[in-house]
Amino acid sequence: MNPKFKEIGGLFVGEYYKAFDAKNNRMNLKPFYHEAALLTFEGQEFQGPESILQKLMSIQSDNIERLISSADYQPTIDGGIFCTISGQLRTVSEHDKPMPFVHTFLLKPVGENFFVFNEVFRLALHDC
Amino acid sequence: MNPKFKEIGGLFVGEYYKAFDAKNNRMNLKPFYHEAALLTFEGQEFQGPESILQKLMSIQSDNIERLISSADYQPTIDGGIFCTISGQLRTVSEHDKPMPFVHTFLLKPVGENFFVFNEVFRLALHDC
Repeated sequence: MNPKFKEIGGLFVGEYYKAFDAKNNRMNLKPFYHEAALLTFEGQEFQGPESILQKLMSIQSDNIERLISSADYQPTIDGGIFCTISGQLRTVSEHDKPMPFVHTFLLKPVGENFFVFNEVFRLALHDC
Repeated sequence: MNPKFKEIGGLFVGEYYKAFDAKNNRMNLKPFYHEAALLTFEGQEFQGPESILQKLMSIQSDNIERLISSADYQPTIDGGIFCTISGQLRTVSEHDKPMPFVHTFLLKPVGENFFVFNEVFRLALHDC
């Protein structure tokens, strides 16, 4: 197991969101994904970097702020890193309710680098 | 990748919560865990079935109801299954606020069976 799992996981998540938030530059996320990567976004399934990037580029995030409540990292037995992020998305409007989200990743090493092999995003909206 | 990932993931999660909810019988969860299993529970880290079971047995869940909002399953490239569950815990008291939670698992096959290698549980409590 990789002893630097917290450092690598934290670095990955920071870089990932930085690239996600860069306006008109979300294509910079492409190198994060392995050819075999899977994304499940609100129940919709995408396979491979092209398909995943197409989805990511379509997500509107203007005037939305991301607040991370928890970030947990674990090493996997084969040298990968398991990441579970929870937080909230908030719009600039005070009238909109904050939207809790869950974002999970499974990263695996290929050579010297780590790539996203599995990713799930869910807005955790409940009837309450 | 295992083509039955949704079936196996769904079956696992159903059996896991059934065993968790069985009063005084939570020891039945032990066979779900691989010797190398890791649990991160609200930021506390546990390693191996004995340590994990000791933690699980200590969790009070009387009069708490679990409502699952989403359950997403993905196959991993090495034949494992990546599970992301979100939901709420509610007490019988109408005065208590529901508590959103995130529960993630990485299952891997060993012989004919799947075992938990990685697990993270978080109450997704936000300041709002």
